Amino acid sequence: MSPVTVAIVGATGETGRSIVDALLQSPTDFGITALSRPSSMEKPENQKLREGGINVVAYDVHGPLEKLVDILTGVDVVISAVSYAGISDQIPLARAAKEAGVKRFVPSAYAPTTAPNGAVEMRDRDVFNYIKELHLPYTFIDVGWWYQGFIPRLPSGRTEYARFPNPFGDNPVMGDGNVIIALADLRDAGRYIARIIVDPRTLNKMVYAYTETMTANQIFDQAERNSEESVERQYVSETKLHAMIAEAQEVVKNKGASPVDILKLHMAQYQYSIGIKDQSSPEYADYLGYLSSKDLYPDFKAISFSDFMKDALDGKLRPLYS
Amino acid sequence: MSPVTVAIVGATGETGRSIVDALLQSPTDFGITALSRPSSMEKPENQKLREGGINVVAYDVHGPLEKLVDILTGVDVVISAVSYAGISDQIPLARAAKEAGVKRFVPSAYAPTTAPNGAVEMRDRDVFNYIKELHLPYTFIDVGWWYQGFIPRLPSGRTEYARFPNPFGDNPVMGDGNVIIALADLRDAGRYIARIIVDPRTLNKMVYAYTETMTANQIFDQAERNSEESVERQYVSETKLHAMIAEAQEVVKNKGASPVDILKLHMAQYQYSIGIKDQSSPEYADYLGYLSSKDLYPDFKAISFSDFMKDALDGKLRPLYS
Repeated sequence: MSPVTVAIVGATGETGRSIVDALLQSPTDFGITALSRPSSMEKPENQKLREGGINVVAYDVHGPLEKLVDILTGVDVVISAVSYAGISDQIPLARAAKEAGVKRFVPSAYAPTTAPNGAVEMRDRDVFNYIKELHLPYTFIDVGWWYQGFIPRLPSGRTEYARFPNPFGDNPVMGDGNVIIALADLRDAGRYIARIIVDPRTLNKMVYAYTETMTANQIFDQAERNSEESVERQYVSETKLHAMIAEAQEVVKNKGASPVDILKLHMAQYQYSIGIKDQSSPEYADYLGYLSSKDLYPDFKAISFSDFMKDALDGKLRPLYS
Repeated sequence: MSPVTVAIVGATGETGRSIVDALLQSPTDFGITALSRPSSMEKPENQKLREGGINVVAYDVHGPLEKLVDILTGVDVVISAVSYAGISDQIPLARAAKEAGVKRFVPSAYAPTTAPNGAVEMRDRDVFNYIKELHLPYTFIDVGWWYQGFIPRLPSGRTEYARFPNPFGDNPVMGDGNVIIALADLRDAGRYIARIIVDPRTLNKMVYAYTETMTANQIFDQAERNSEESVERQYVSETKLHAMIAEAQEVVKNKGASPVDILKLHMAQYQYSIGIKDQSSPEYADYLGYLSSKDLYPDFKAISFSDFMKDALDGKLRPLYS
């Protein structure tokens, strides 16, 4: 059998790395092309990809369409793993994929499910609707909240190496912390994706590939059991969260808002959607029409949150955004 | 078994009549309430409903929410059959339905499928997204283009009694007229809906309940065979249709655009979606995730387009919007 050809945008980002690792380790024979901004071709991250046997190709999203079509011709699956800043770059990418006859387009998502009402602005419906207007074969993949976003600050400081700054506090809990959240290890995200993209059942479907369902309180309780330390929690009330969203919206409205400001807004909206409105639970995803990884891949050996915490405590995690 | 309680908004409109007729004739025991604007309570159409055994209740969409909730408490299924002018009235209706614990909400659609990108402005995504934000159980039902919209003007004038004015010509054909269009008799729309709303398989799903798939050319060819007259066609090019949409948009932008102006715009957008972009075909609906009436109800005895044409020629149709 000839390899399944995959082109990935954003291969050096957080989700992109997880996906590339999984494609390389998959029993499926994947032929992988990473599409890189022309100006980034010689960056060390791309050198690393080349060493891993990945074809790195210069790709200018703002260049002529025919060039994009040429690059994508013969590609079976296009995976977009762009960050929120590159969301709208997916429009020309999708158009080129359609013209090139790509068999499956996977837009960037890989997050908890949310209501499709624009309340989480980084969940751009325009791209998804454009894909549908094109009648482009797609799979939309969400993976729940990443475990990596729930590494607690501990009195011992043992987990500091793997944490990244959180605008909501050291160990924030939205509302009363009793709303179910779907979760997965970012390291598993790619492994789920590697199975989903070659699965005929998932064509033109939304898929929820999550591992655990836990409340914020249960997550920190588990972290306490693993660490034998106490996780001091900061409860963020719905009112406070609303105020933070409103404030972040004000900042973003002003010209010159930084990417960090925008990310802060999106994160606040996400926290509200997940922690207050219960929009990441498998039950809600099912209501929205998602297929579940639990049904599709009952044999999947996923990393539990407890095992993730052990890795965090043992210094085995790679810090995100590093 | 206790009856299935249904509340319907827009019961006296074109789709509403078809739905009410079907609910009354269905083997399922339906308890039907028609929600009427307070100012319309004594209109003859409502008197007619009462004579048919239907409970007509005053319902002020702009009134206090608790009143709407009271009215909808104990209702199993809410069917909205509002016209395009009442689309946004569905927002408070959906909210009240959620609070009242309604088991299924059917927003107004009953038309051909289209891309969910806002290109057909009367296909309001805001209402559908709001329903999903509410986590309100729903069924979204489309029925294809109504046969009633394809009654040709004939040299004999035999069909004039049943026709309504068409801004595109007497017997307009979009593009080359070879794009597949899904169609149903409006009289069957209600019969499909009466089955769909009590079917557990259709809960939280989109359903496409259509009868025929024909191109515009095939439709008029069939009409020629039935009538033994010639159907003179006006081919409307894609360029012309674009110009008509742009013109209609200009008119609507100006304050004081009449409902007819708005309808003209929506119809032009619909014609483009269906006749040029191939967005009403069952294949496209399947891509969008719709269930099909062909799979769900293989035993359904639908009116064929040919039988519809015979009725049209025999003077047996009730003129629409009369």
